[in-house]
This record gives sequence, C-alpha cells and structure tokens, in this order.
Amino acid sequence: MSTRTLVKNLAALPDGPVTVSGWVETVRDQKKVQFVILRDESGAVQLVNPATREVDPSLTEPAEVAEASARLATTEAISALAHGSFITVTGELKHDERVKLGGLEVKIASFEVVTAANPETPIAADSSLDKRMDWRFLDLRHPKQALIFRIQTTFLHALRGVWVEKGLIEIQTPKLMASASESRAELFEVEYFEGKAYLAQSPQFFKQMAQAAGFGGVFEVGPAFRADPSFTSRHATEFTSIDTEISWIDSHEDVMALHEELMVAGFQAVVDKHGAEIAELFGIELTVPTRPFPRIPLAEAKQIVADRGYVIPRADDDMDPEGERQISAYVKEAFGHDFVFLTDYASSIRPFYHMRHEGDPSLTNSYDLIYNGVEISTGAQREHRIDVLIEQARDKGMDPEELEFYLDFFRYGVPPHGGFGMGLARVLMLMLEEHSIRETTYLFRGPTRLQP
Amino acid sequence: MSTRTLVKNLAALPDGPVTVSGWVETVRDQKKVQFVILRDESGAVQLVNPATREVDPSLTEPAEVAEASARLATTEAISALAHGSFITVTGELKHDERVKLGGLEVKIASFEVVTAANPETPIAADSSLDKRMDWRFLDLRHPKQALIFRIQTTFLHALRGVWVEKGLIEIQTPKLMASASESRAELFEVEYFEGKAYLAQSPQFFKQMAQAAGFGGVFEVGPAFRADPSFTSRHATEFTSIDTEISWIDSHEDVMALHEELMVAGFQAVVDKHGAEIAELFGIELTVPTRPFPRIPLAEAKQIVADRGYVIPRADDDMDPEGERQISAYVKEAFGHDFVFLTDYASSIRPFYHMRHEGDPSLTNSYDLIYNGVEISTGAQREHRIDVLIEQARDKGMDPEELEFYLDFFRYGVPPHGGFGMGLARVLMLMLEEHSIRETTYLFRGPTRLQP
Repeated sequence: MSTRTLVKNLAALPDGPVTVSGWVETVRDQKKVQFVILRDESGAVQLVNPATREVDPSLTEPAEVAEASARLATTEAISALAHGSFITVTGELKHDERVKLGGLEVKIASFEVVTAANPETPIAADSSLDKRMDWRFLDLRHPKQALIFRIQTTFLHALRGVWVEKGLIEIQTPKLMASASESRAELFEVEYFEGKAYLAQSPQFFKQMAQAAGFGGVFEVGPAFRADPSFTSRHATEFTSIDTEISWIDSHEDVMALHEELMVAGFQAVVDKHGAEIAELFGIELTVPTRPFPRIPLAEAKQIVADRGYVIPRADDDMDPEGERQISAYVKEAFGHDFVFLTDYASSIRPFYHMRHEGDPSLTNSYDLIYNGVEISTGAQREHRIDVLIEQARDKGMDPEELEFYLDFFRYGVPPHGGFGMGLARVLMLMLEEHSIRETTYLFRGPTRLQP
Repeated sequence: MSTRTLVKNLAALPDGPVTVSGWVETVRDQKKVQFVILRDESGAVQLVNPATREVDPSLTEPAEVAEASARLATTEAISALAHGSFITVTGELKHDERVKLGGLEVKIASFEVVTAANPETPIAADSSLDKRMDWRFLDLRHPKQALIFRIQTTFLHALRGVWVEKGLIEIQTPKLMASASESRAELFEVEYFEGKAYLAQSPQFFKQMAQAAGFGGVFEVGPAFRADPSFTSRHATEFTSIDTEISWIDSHEDVMALHEELMVAGFQAVVDKHGAEIAELFGIELTVPTRPFPRIPLAEAKQIVADRGYVIPRADDDMDPEGERQISAYVKEAFGHDFVFLTDYASSIRPFYHMRHEGDPSLTNSYDLIYNGVEISTGAQREHRIDVLIEQARDKGMDPEELEFYLDFFRYGVPPHGGFGMGLARVLMLMLEEHSIRETTYLFRGPTRLQP
C-alpha cells in the first residue's frame, strides 16, 4: 500500500513530512500562493504552495536553475489542476490555528497527478436529484452523501452484533424462485434456461423454512425485488431488506421486543460513531430511542387520527401515508417518541401467512413500525398450523396447490415463530431527514432507472 | 418468549425443574420406560418417562385416578410421537454420569406437542444428495448440516469485523443492470416493465465505482448470478459472493495482503468458536493458516505441475481443476500450507479490466487463491487509466460504446485500486472437506433446481 496518511489522522501528527492522497475539491490559484483543498474518504485538508511564476533569469548555478524550474513546473501543474483529479502530495505538515480547515495545512514539496479528471464536471451543487443520480459516483464524493454509507455500515454492523451475540444464524436465501413469494402482481420474470424463474420479493418463505429446519433464529441483509411501477420517494424496484425470524415466540410481542433491541443497538452505534458528523453535515441531533417503543392497535390509531380531523380516504382497513404522519405526530406529542408500533392489523390487509387472533380471525398478530411518519417495517407472528394456514390461503383466493413447496415446511413439525422485514434505505432516509430513498440507496433502481 | 432453556445451557444448571423445546429426534418406547431424544438448535438431550400402561383399577381416590390417567395419556402420547414433531417439555433435570448423551436427562412432568410431524419422513440417512435437497428443511435438522451455517455466520462476522475496523464501507450494489458486468454468455435476462434488465454476475463495476467516488475501500456479501449450464460440484447459477475493493494500492500484492488478513481472521474465529464441534462432526482438526500464504507465478506453477508428470490439457494459458489439485498438493508438501496464491495470470485469460504488467502486457497484476486444491477467489489490481482501459477492452473484442457507463467512472479521476471476489460456499466446502457446494449452500440453485 502507499504510505499515505488519512486526512483525519493528520491532526494527531507533529509538524513534519507527510504524504496525503485524495481528490482535488477546490483550487485557489492566487498570484503569490496557491491553495488546494484535498479530500479523501476521511476528511479534507488545505495544501499550500508558494507560487513560482517564472525562473529568475539572474540565476546561473545549474542546481538553482533546476530547483526553480521544478517549482515553476509544480506551480503550473497546480494552475492546470482539474477539480476531481486524484493526486498524491508529499510535503510539510504545519499546525496553524489561523487555518480554518482543521487548523493545519501541508506545504507542498512534491506532487503527482495520479489520474486527471475531465475539466468539465457534469453536475453542480444545484443539479436535480435525477441528474445527480446519473453521475452518482461524483455525487457520492460529497461528504454528506458519503457519510450516509458510513452510517449504513455502522448500523448494519451493530444489528449483526446483536444477532450473533444471541446465536442467530446468518442465511443467504436464493433470489431466484420457481414461483411468487408475496404477490403475483409485482413479480419480475427471468428467462431461466428453457423455463422461467422469478425474483424473490422477500426472503419470507426461506426464513420461515429455517424455523422448520430447527435453526431457532436467522437473519439476512440482502436484496429484494418488486416490479412496482410507482414513482414515490419511498419505493424502489430493488431494495435492501433487513430480515430476521425467530422461533418459540408467544406472540408478535416477542418480535417487537427483538426489533426494539436491534434499533436501539443500531442507533446507539450510529450516535456514538457519527453523532458529531451528523450534527455538522445534516444539522440533526440524533438520539437513541428509548424502550419500550409506544404500541397502538391500528383501530385505535385510526380513531386518534380521525379525532385529529384527518379522515383516511381508503375503503380497506389500512392506514395511508398521511395517516402514518398523523399518528407519528401524535406519538411525538404524547410520548416524545419517534417510533411507534401499530399493531393488530386486519386480516383483510395482511398476507395469508400472518397468524390471526385466537377468537377473532378478523385481526392478526402483526405490526408495522412507523418512524418519523413513515412505515419502515412489517412484522408478525406466522401461522404455523398447516390446516389453519391452508384455510387462510384459500380465504385469500389462493390455490394451495401452487404453494405446495412452502406448505411442505409445515408438514413435518415447525415451532411457533415470527419475524420482520425492514427497508434499510427507508430507515436511513428518516434518520437523516432526507426526502427520498434515492438519497440513501447506493444505486437506486426504479421503473425507468437501471444505470449507472 | 417462552421460558425454555437451550439444551446447551442445561449442563450448567443444578438439578431441578426446567423447560426445553425442540423436535423429536428418536423415541425408544420400552415397556417400563420411554426415552425421547429432543434436539434444539444448540444440542440434544435425553428425556425419560416411566411408562404408565394402564390406570390401576384398584385406585379409588378421584385425585389418584386423575393423576394416573394423566400419566397414561402422556405415555400414550409419547408412544404416538412422530419423529420430527416439535414439543415443549417441562420436567426435572437430573445430572447422571451414566447417561451417555451429555451426562444428564430430564424426567418428563408435562409435555405438549406443539406441531405434530407427518409420521412418514421423506428422507433417510442414505438418501441421495438430490433427494436431500428436495427436503432441505429436514436435511438441515442434522447437526452436521446446521453447523455449516453456524460456521458461515461466524466466518462472515469475523470478516466484517476486519473490514469495519479498517474503516471500509459496506455497500449493497444493485443486482439489476442494464447490461452485462462480466460475460454476455452467462447472463440472465429479466423482463423489466417495457424493456429488459440483466442480473449482475458480480458487483465488479459497482465496487469499482466506489473507488471513483472516493470511498477508499468497500465490501459486500451478496448474491451473484451466472447462467452457467454446467453441473459440476463447484458451480451454481446463484451464489454468495464475498467482495472487497480498496484504493491506493501499489499492486495486487496489497490485495493479497488484505485477503490473507481476512482469511486468518475468519479461520481464527471459526476454530475458536466451532473447532471442537468440527472435530466431532466432520472429523477435521481445523487450523488457522499462517501468513504469508505461498505465492507462485502461474507460469512457474504450470512448470511445477508438469514436473510432477501432469500435462494440462488446455490450449489457453489457464490452469485446469486437476492442475489446481496438483499445485495444491505440491504446496502442501513443500510448505505445509493449504492455501496458495497463483499470480500473474496471462492477459489472454483475464478480463479487460485487470491491470497488465508494466513492460509486459501479456501478464496481469492478478491472482487466484487456491484452497485445498480448488480455486476459491480471483483478485487483481484494476486498470484505472481510461485510455489503457479502452485499449484493453478493444483488445478483447469489446465495443467501448457498450461500456460507456462504466468507462465514465474513470473520466473524472480515480485512484489506483484493486480487490477480489470469493465464493462463500466454496470456502466452506473446502474447509469442511465436503464434496459439493450443494452441501454448503442454504438453498442451491442450478440449471434444473429452483425449489424449494
């Protein structure tokens, strides 16, 4: 590896020689002195070069002429530097309180253009989101955009720490399936040799299979696919789904308890590691949610929303996005909490595999987790009794014969179980008060976007 | 959650009341006493029940009759227990050295069949691999099979620990692409609204994009897809790829150094956590590889193989599977090592984006990692100079116009970089001396297998 020092590590070094590598963020080319802001993945530093605009004609010593020529060449190279070019600079680190950027600068001794950028950058600070997505690799150079993915890294690692500590097993479930896992309507079809395959809409069936296999508990962070033609700020045709499923639960309450624990661990890690940067770049004082998160049965939540004067314009029993915002606002006012579990959704709007209430089959042992006004997750206890499961599939107008491979999981014994799926990009969007999951997805995929 | 005790935690408990939950592995229904082996995700325990075959007709006290009837019912329920059924048992834990299985047993006080299994199990110990895969959820109940996925969990968590510690960023790259990422020949086509999309054969382009974005280093564990019609023990149409890519390298040597560090961390964690179980169930004394792994340029490796009397029957410059076994055998004999980096592959058999030697464009800055005789990974320094990259694409007969979105990554500056992709199931297969990646894949996908 090159012996570069990461910019964030300069502050702890004494004055003296250093090498830094990164890309050129700005050049200020003044007559007597040149300033370059160099950025790497850890931060930005000011480089300074006293300009040599000509070789003093009075010089006669060959060594002096050579040195002056070299300084002239460096000066001209800096003048010609295109924004975005990657450079490696060796020079003298000097701590100087007058330098706004971190209180230090590096006086350039030698510098190398590793790869020169095209001088015309295709996006600017005021470019549209769509245009920025066309040039996502340049967009991601902005410290704010890059921070999102460092936060993502920290968040996921904290979740996995909890799962591993609890002895859950990480599975990679197949994304190629012989039939639908959720809804026939939003299914991508794949040419598969002489036949067809379909892209998994969720790992639902396969993480349930692990319960029949006696795994006890599993987790997965992986892609899921929905052929959803909508263009909202919350939908994508491909998204990263955070999934877990555990056995031997008594009800969905056990799933919510695990869910809370994961969220608290994830937020705690993010606040600890990135809290200051989030405050600086996003202007948000991120806090760790307190347990327990408020829980409100859906019917009650709808009443609360109605009492606030909002009538949900839906014929079915579901919430709508404005209803979710309203109930979140209520929870924030009443409990000071950013999260709320809406529980006990109606069977009519839940999949056939959600367990229904004992004694009231119109309701399910299920929940949605709402965060800052938007649904980020659906969880439930699953129906593990094969005869009830088949009945519920029929009740939804499904043909049990088409579900044979899934129903088989329940024919040789399976413990009571449940779990949730959660959209990673939504969590990040709401955490950072961004307006679209396009901002919090590395490379967004939508009905009209497959590139880059 | 139910208050069950995991079987592995029983040994540390004093004699007294416990509740355990799991599935029935065997029933020994003797006249005077019944034994049930109950297994959960952590181990197996013997349950014992003194059989009550009839209610003593001499009993007259109603309480005594009721108790005897209950014991008769329990006895009959145990006699009727189908292998595989999930049960919850409360009883008295008793440590007893005479019990072979862990030196303890639980005397059944009450027991509940949570879900009864079909009495006829479709697979047996001697079922074919294909048949076992048909019933994968039953196959995975075997402790040996389940251990594979606990090892996988530990291995991946250790790798991620290294990446996170080094400050690398976790990315989730899209699996839906507008064009091929590797080879047009092995590409799955997806119906994408009015057009077509393709499934990513690797995250290659997208992890390189992160270098242009200034991320410094990235990692991903996710699915990759190859429309490969072959039926070997090492190939699948969908597999889990472990990927990393880092900036500011001097050569592929830096990639190999990271690769070694990751493997050592992964193996160390597996040996620490599962070494004893691996010895017990697989008969393997797994050890942690020592650094540095041997490195042999491919040309030299081919000479060594030829000197051993094996002539590689290939017209191109590549190794073949038998050649890989031979060089592994040599390395084991000469260096006592299970791993070997074969380096400096010919440009003719490497993708266009591998950097070629300065001064000898017939060779690349690349390597394969061979483990116990099989290739598990390909790594390389990438060509980051746009003009050279375009030239190399043309040299491979590719049309640079079709690669525009990828080539754009190099037009605005990019640091020198490299990385590797590694097949998770292959690592596990070779670690555990299994004969096929079908054994080390949660749900295998091949040309004729899409279920379960």
